[in-house]
Amino acid sequence: MSEVPESKLNSLSIDCVIFGFEDAQIKLLLIQRELDPHRGSWSLPGGFIKMEEGIHAASERILKEMTGVDNLYLEQLGAFGEVDRYPLKRVVTIAYYALIKPGNYTLNPGPDASEARWFPLEECPPLPFDHPDILQSAINTLQWKVQHQPIGFNLLPEKFTLLQLQELYEAILQVKLDKPNFRRKFTRLDLLEPLDEYQKAVSHRAARLYRFDEAKYKELTETGFSLRELRLMGG
Amino acid sequence: MSEVPESKLNSLSIDCVIFGFEDAQIKLLLIQRELDPHRGSWSLPGGFIKMEEGIHAASERILKEMTGVDNLYLEQLGAFGEVDRYPLKRVVTIAYYALIKPGNYTLNPGPDASEARWFPLEECPPLPFDHPDILQSAINTLQWKVQHQPIGFNLLPEKFTLLQLQELYEAILQVKLDKPNFRRKFTRLDLLEPLDEYQKAVSHRAARLYRFDEAKYKELTETGFSLRELRLMGG
Repeated sequence: MSEVPESKLNSLSIDCVIFGFEDAQIKLLLIQRELDPHRGSWSLPGGFIKMEEGIHAASERILKEMTGVDNLYLEQLGAFGEVDRYPLKRVVTIAYYALIKPGNYTLNPGPDASEARWFPLEECPPLPFDHPDILQSAINTLQWKVQHQPIGFNLLPEKFTLLQLQELYEAILQVKLDKPNFRRKFTRLDLLEPLDEYQKAVSHRAARLYRFDEAKYKELTETGFSLRELRLMGG
Repeated sequence: MSEVPESKLNSLSIDCVIFGFEDAQIKLLLIQRELDPHRGSWSLPGGFIKMEEGIHAASERILKEMTGVDNLYLEQLGAFGEVDRYPLKRVVTIAYYALIKPGNYTLNPGPDASEARWFPLEECPPLPFDHPDILQSAINTLQWKVQHQPIGFNLLPEKFTLLQLQELYEAILQVKLDKPNFRRKFTRLDLLEPLDEYQKAVSHRAARLYRFDEAKYKELTETGFSLRELRLMGG
């Protein structure tokens, strides 16, 4: 690797899969493209990496441009670089996924888009380029991760009910879970701290609120756990 | 993303972390660089991506150039792209890791290297660029993966003893494991198929050979498992 051949690859972009959880649904943040190619389509937000910024910094910048916030849960999915993924030119993209709480932010579509909007995952419009592959990879990663690390909490409010937690897992894993079994498994992890507070009752009995134990969260993020049996309980 | 800015990033490379398992040790395949920068250093094998090949194909090509073999276990680790990772130019690299069986191949250092050699991980020479970070990321991934997917078998001979399997896990996790506990955990996974064959005895009693059950291997690769307790048994 002495001489870098100048002409070989002419660009590198970032694309972000941004997940939220609202109304018991997983949602996806998309932008409407204002530029060619695929002008007018809804696509994953992204952009080119500047010469003077690292790739992770570029993904943080794009996310901050859209939400006004930094320090969000943001992880790299990997590079996507099939030869024909982008028309006319060779562009490799580095994909990231982020977990955020939809209600907390005022969206800003950024410089190359006319609009930014949350879509329920099931109502996702057709995506251009290889964005369907990138999205599928993000979904697979999220499904795997929530069964082995406690990252799902990045999608929940600070205080949540056990029902909300179960709905989150059901929405991510796309299965119905058995309530006593789910609660028993989670209890065994020692991750949940019960509070002396209750959800405001609407038409039913007020449910206890929980938050996650910070120390245990860190420990389990590092060591991982297994909730794979959850998937087998689907009904 | 209408116009791709031609001058922003001038190149993209591939780097491969190639692990093997031999003499109860994890080994790393390195090449000695024949070109600047860092001429003469031992580094991760790699190269530039050709215009007409996808990124995964590029990593397969590099691996095949070195070993003469394809269809090896090869996974992307992700992109590494700090601004100053490469001298003078901006080069982002996409890192892969591979698992191979050292004894099976005649090594070929490839066009830009004078030599290719297996190093025990503990005797790894100082690596140039951000290769130490890439290696650490590969080690972390391997340690995580062997505790949740049965990928370790890609490092073992087709038929192996339970001692070899334990030595593999000890080498990867860098801990001593409790033998009965380890065997019990593995037995529970139903992954091992005992054979009516025995290792050639040298100075001790001949040990039974095992192989992994193909169907179960596929199932566990998909669903994952948890062997995290293994790490807590270190002595």
